[in-house]
Amino acid sequence: MAAVTITDPAVIRGEVSASRAAGRVVGFVPTMGALHAGHLALVEQATRECDDVAVSIFVNPTQFGPGEDFERYPRTLDRDLDSLSRLRVRWVFTPTEAAMYPHGAATRVVVAGPACGYEGTIRPGHFSGVATVVCRLFLSVPADRAYFGAKDWQQTRVIERMVRDLGLPIAVVVCPTVREPDGLAMSSRNAYLAPEDRSRAVALSESLREAAAAWDAGADVNGIEAAMRTRLESRGIVVDYVAIADAESLGQVVTGQPAVALVAGRLGSTRLIDNRLLSPRVG
Amino acid sequence: MAAVTITDPAVIRGEVSASRAAGRVVGFVPTMGALHAGHLALVEQATRECDDVAVSIFVNPTQFGPGEDFERYPRTLDRDLDSLSRLRVRWVFTPTEAAMYPHGAATRVVVAGPACGYEGTIRPGHFSGVATVVCRLFLSVPADRAYFGAKDWQQTRVIERMVRDLGLPIAVVVCPTVREPDGLAMSSRNAYLAPEDRSRAVALSESLREAAAAWDAGADVNGIEAAMRTRLESRGIVVDYVAIADAESLGQVVTGQPAVALVAGRLGSTRLIDNRLLSPRVG
Repeated sequence: MAAVTITDPAVIRGEVSASRAAGRVVGFVPTMGALHAGHLALVEQATRECDDVAVSIFVNPTQFGPGEDFERYPRTLDRDLDSLSRLRVRWVFTPTEAAMYPHGAATRVVVAGPACGYEGTIRPGHFSGVATVVCRLFLSVPADRAYFGAKDWQQTRVIERMVRDLGLPIAVVVCPTVREPDGLAMSSRNAYLAPEDRSRAVALSESLREAAAAWDAGADVNGIEAAMRTRLESRGIVVDYVAIADAESLGQVVTGQPAVALVAGRLGSTRLIDNRLLSPRVG
Repeated sequence: MAAVTITDPAVIRGEVSASRAAGRVVGFVPTMGALHAGHLALVEQATRECDDVAVSIFVNPTQFGPGEDFERYPRTLDRDLDSLSRLRVRWVFTPTEAAMYPHGAATRVVVAGPACGYEGTIRPGHFSGVATVVCRLFLSVPADRAYFGAKDWQQTRVIERMVRDLGLPIAVVVCPTVREPDGLAMSSRNAYLAPEDRSRAVALSESLREAAAAWDAGADVNGIEAAMRTRLESRGIVVDYVAIADAESLGQVVTGQPAVALVAGRLGSTRLIDNRLLSPRVG
């Protein structure tokens, strides 16, 4: 059965509420469209775990900074709907900007903590835009579970923090990053890459694999970060940051707690990020 | 039947959701306790309009600035519960600070627009604290209708703006200010007033009545504001602001739209606010 496309927040809210009232478990996958295999893996996981699945497609202007790629962000609605029609999706929510940001809108959800540093530093206002639209989406699609990709690791920490702090009644499910055969993390922005940049982009995931091996071998954080940076720069990638951080708070690594290796860099005018979870180190 | 007191947000959320699922209309009155006749009028209106009523009592630290009266704010829980026991209240929600602001809490709801100017200028961060806690409370107590007093007029505009922008599924009901026989607006802070300040405090409502008469007689905004200030200062009140503003946006008066007269001043160490709606002026 093809999904029904809904643009009105009140309508999808009513549909989802009715489904839950009938005892069904509802899953929700918020996206900005330009769906790739990573998104579809989220949707597939949601369909396995839930009775009904909603997918939203909304390119959220408030999470793009001035000079970022809001205008050129790929918009492929017909292809997206076609991809979703092959999966057991019940609702596709495609709100207008005016529905998400009503006339005179003046409210922002601002998260500190895990939103500080890394993407939060490079892209001021980005996580506030993400938190605001995700809060708005969660209130429009009051599902049991919401699915996000681990590729945007810091984003998942910000959303979990917001959900806990505001008491939003939804469980955040983080799904593994889906990768191209050579290891490049799936991203809608990969479509921007010129062929020679595409082949160099593999250095991001290579640097993370190398970091994980060094971490497991007991190397120190500074040494790992330096080696990551060297590898990336040797491939002509302009590094925004490389870091080993606490996986939850994104602050300093804590002995015995999971850590994460983070990387962000630019190839030409395309900016890519990736990450890899590291096992807790004891002592 | 005495109300049941609940401290756990998940528990009251379940109770309210179950009541609504059974087709009952739920009303919610958020308060900081120290209940006076103004609060009780809100509760009474809620009991008239709703099947079940929840009242929250939580002195929210994040809406008090440094040097404000958070520590000395009156806390009269036993008397509050006694007052509520005479009304048809089903639930009294008394969350702990740790429940409202979980460990590591880092999320703020920030409203611009109607939160700018007036209280927003005098009390930086106040409305962000209000919006954050009210959002959290609305998610804990997912009622049909929430009741607020018109005495805190700017606050009602901020909350309505937030509700609309985030799509919170609740109707905001603004109830008339309840006044002492001499016209002083009921406020938990009136309890701070020394006897001589109490008698002078009537100048606030007098200045508003005078402003409304002048407005209806066609006086200009600057003249009305000047007269209000003169009256207040002649009674020894230190004026924080007097203003005639658009009742909705709190910006400049718009011809044909409702306006509001606002006043805030200090008597000794006590700060009081009041307001009065003005009829739209045509032409």
